[in-house]
Amino acid sequence: MGNCNSSRRPLTTKYLSMAVGLSHNPQLLPVSGIKLSACSAGIYKKQRPDLALIACDKGSATAAVFTSNAFCAAPVIVARDHLQKTSPLYLLINAGNANAGMGDKGIADADFLCRKLSLLAKCQKAAVLPFSTGVIGEPLPVEKITNSLPRLLSAMSEDGWPKVTRAIMTTDTIAKGISRQVNIKGRNITITGIVKGSGMIKPDMATMLAFIATDAAVDKSILQRILKEAVEHSFNRISVDGDTSTNDACVLIATGKSGAGVIRSMQGAAARILRESITEVCMYLAQAVIRDGEGATKFVTLEINQGRNTAECKKVAYAIAQSPLVKTALFASDPNWGRIIAAIGRAGIKKLKVNDTRVFIDNVCLFEHGSRARDYSETSGREVFRKQEIKLRVDLGRGQANYQYWTCDLSDAYIRINAEYRT
Amino acid sequence: MGNCNSSRRPLTTKYLSMAVGLSHNPQLLPVSGIKLSACSAGIYKKQRPDLALIACDKGSATAAVFTSNAFCAAPVIVARDHLQKTSPLYLLINAGNANAGMGDKGIADADFLCRKLSLLAKCQKAAVLPFSTGVIGEPLPVEKITNSLPRLLSAMSEDGWPKVTRAIMTTDTIAKGISRQVNIKGRNITITGIVKGSGMIKPDMATMLAFIATDAAVDKSILQRILKEAVEHSFNRISVDGDTSTNDACVLIATGKSGAGVIRSMQGAAARILRESITEVCMYLAQAVIRDGEGATKFVTLEINQGRNTAECKKVAYAIAQSPLVKTALFASDPNWGRIIAAIGRAGIKKLKVNDTRVFIDNVCLFEHGSRARDYSETSGREVFRKQEIKLRVDLGRGQANYQYWTCDLSDAYIRINAEYRT
Repeated sequence: MGNCNSSRRPLTTKYLSMAVGLSHNPQLLPVSGIKLSACSAGIYKKQRPDLALIACDKGSATAAVFTSNAFCAAPVIVARDHLQKTSPLYLLINAGNANAGMGDKGIADADFLCRKLSLLAKCQKAAVLPFSTGVIGEPLPVEKITNSLPRLLSAMSEDGWPKVTRAIMTTDTIAKGISRQVNIKGRNITITGIVKGSGMIKPDMATMLAFIATDAAVDKSILQRILKEAVEHSFNRISVDGDTSTNDACVLIATGKSGAGVIRSMQGAAARILRESITEVCMYLAQAVIRDGEGATKFVTLEINQGRNTAECKKVAYAIAQSPLVKTALFASDPNWGRIIAAIGRAGIKKLKVNDTRVFIDNVCLFEHGSRARDYSETSGREVFRKQEIKLRVDLGRGQANYQYWTCDLSDAYIRINAEYRT
Repeated sequence: MGNCNSSRRPLTTKYLSMAVGLSHNPQLLPVSGIKLSACSAGIYKKQRPDLALIACDKGSATAAVFTSNAFCAAPVIVARDHLQKTSPLYLLINAGNANAGMGDKGIADADFLCRKLSLLAKCQKAAVLPFSTGVIGEPLPVEKITNSLPRLLSAMSEDGWPKVTRAIMTTDTIAKGISRQVNIKGRNITITGIVKGSGMIKPDMATMLAFIATDAAVDKSILQRILKEAVEHSFNRISVDGDTSTNDACVLIATGKSGAGVIRSMQGAAARILRESITEVCMYLAQAVIRDGEGATKFVTLEINQGRNTAECKKVAYAIAQSPLVKTALFASDPNWGRIIAAIGRAGIKKLKVNDTRVFIDNVCLFEHGSRARDYSETSGREVFRKQEIKLRVDLGRGQANYQYWTCDLSDAYIRINAEYRT
């Protein structure tokens, strides 16, 4: 071991907000038909909001996507089951404890809370969906949560979005949400979405929860397709397929309270406007997770062009986004393009030609014809790499496919955050 | 960005050796038929050995494996080409510059150095193999290297192993090598191997060079099979298949100077003893790379058992070894088994049953029956996690296959080392 004390000293640094280009107080608009509340149930040792409730009016349609992790958490198992039985009326969300890795007890705990809430709220148990985020492998503090349910129910309000956004945070440094308003056939439609998640510097550590609501009226099966499409262009572009945490969930509720006609197809003007807007909201939220990535100081858009197909563009994007060497170079504002080239080279693309590959940061060409671009200078590279928001573009020179992906840098703050998460 | 200065302060910490359980002065035995020398050619700014030459007697057999990176470095291209033309007599190795990402100029530079050496040494150009390791994308300082060739040639000695081991280091904190002696049919056979590489905390950053020599006599095609087998059990167990750097190379030379009979088959007592010994040497060297991993403070053996096949055991090993969350927990000596479970769950194994999966650290069972093991206590977990050498065992409960893999933790020192590598 030698003298390695310097790297093992007690970690005490405070993690100040480093969210790249995010506002501290997102303006969140109420969505007619949705009421919310949050409180401090004492799940965290320190006093902070850690329990939230979202209620939707009867007649709302709900769509949801969940983690594909083989060991998904108890609330995911229970929520999936309840969704098959009836339309949800309540989403009960806690931070501070993931209720994962708890075996049958975890399922019983999640089920118990749904029952308790259903008795107080006078609805079916299956109309309550549970969500949890936080430490894995600790028993859920069921009593604390149960004791807080009456308080939550008595404080429901259409203006509760900001409170709930803060209550679902774990290592997030900033509350993340957005509202959009669009006009569909003369009616003003509101979409409000919130997200928690910041441990996403590498895709396999996503512990993400997202809740989106709109007062548009949408057929349930169409709503599920709209959500799937939106997630594919947003949350799935910050996370490798299947490479998800035990608790990931994204829920989309359409209350229909705007009075606009019901959308029953993916086609048509109304459907298109809504689809675009919901995808936009999801992209904002997904990017917000990256901007608030643990220890992140840079927000990086990867644009992979000229692939033979989307699959190979994805591979290149993943190889770059998951390279700790590229990410530490970004952190250091060091235009070490060799690391980018090495990542592209190991992406597993057959017959990739080094001479056809070009790499740009913003508009500066770093690499072409198999070596450093002739006009490139270290100074111009450093200028771009010093920026907080960087676009990294790779032209593969093999076809017409392209793919976008978002990532951030890897800083020593990331290590500190995750080394002392439980300690 | 907010007040994030603390994480962006100038990085000045010194990286003291943290190599886990490695001796600073490996005892390296001469191998009859091999002469070596090293010198400071001034490739690095500071005075340090950075150029090495290994010569083998005529009649030696040589086997080699190289990186599968699509953008392999110029010396790899040239060495592969030369190996097809004739038997190597000289290996010329420089640190400080990878001669990668340099296009045609890189090839010309590597070729030029081989020619220069061949003229001085009076051999064919193709009998010289070039190897480079260091920064990508900077022109190789050809003149400095050329000027040092006469000095290298005049200092060749059978005792040059330690010098060469130090000359090929880059971010390595310690010279890594080993010697083994075995008796084959009454003859004393020596095997000496050296390795450089420490940026292997994640497999995709391997910039590894390994040179192994023996005085056994081995048919060339058999030698290649012996090397391939040894690499599969060693260097490929610290690196994902195909996930290699631009410059990786591993060379095995058999000089035949021991006087023992030529090994012409993979079978028979002599072949078996040699195969085992060479695999052992490669395993030691591969593990040494992990022990000297950048910023590493822990050496972790992953043992994945009871899989349906080796492929799925590998997947689980990779998922754990590549999880920054598991690695930071190891660094923090925090037995956060939830992260291990989450990693196993996302490994992509179909129909993996959480209730059949068991996780152990050393002899402590952390997880069984879908939740924390009944007898497990945080205290017993911490006790193991505080150790420098840890075995992490996963029983999948699905079959008879197993797989071993070696990895290390992820510390803030890793980030500092790689953030300031060029700055």
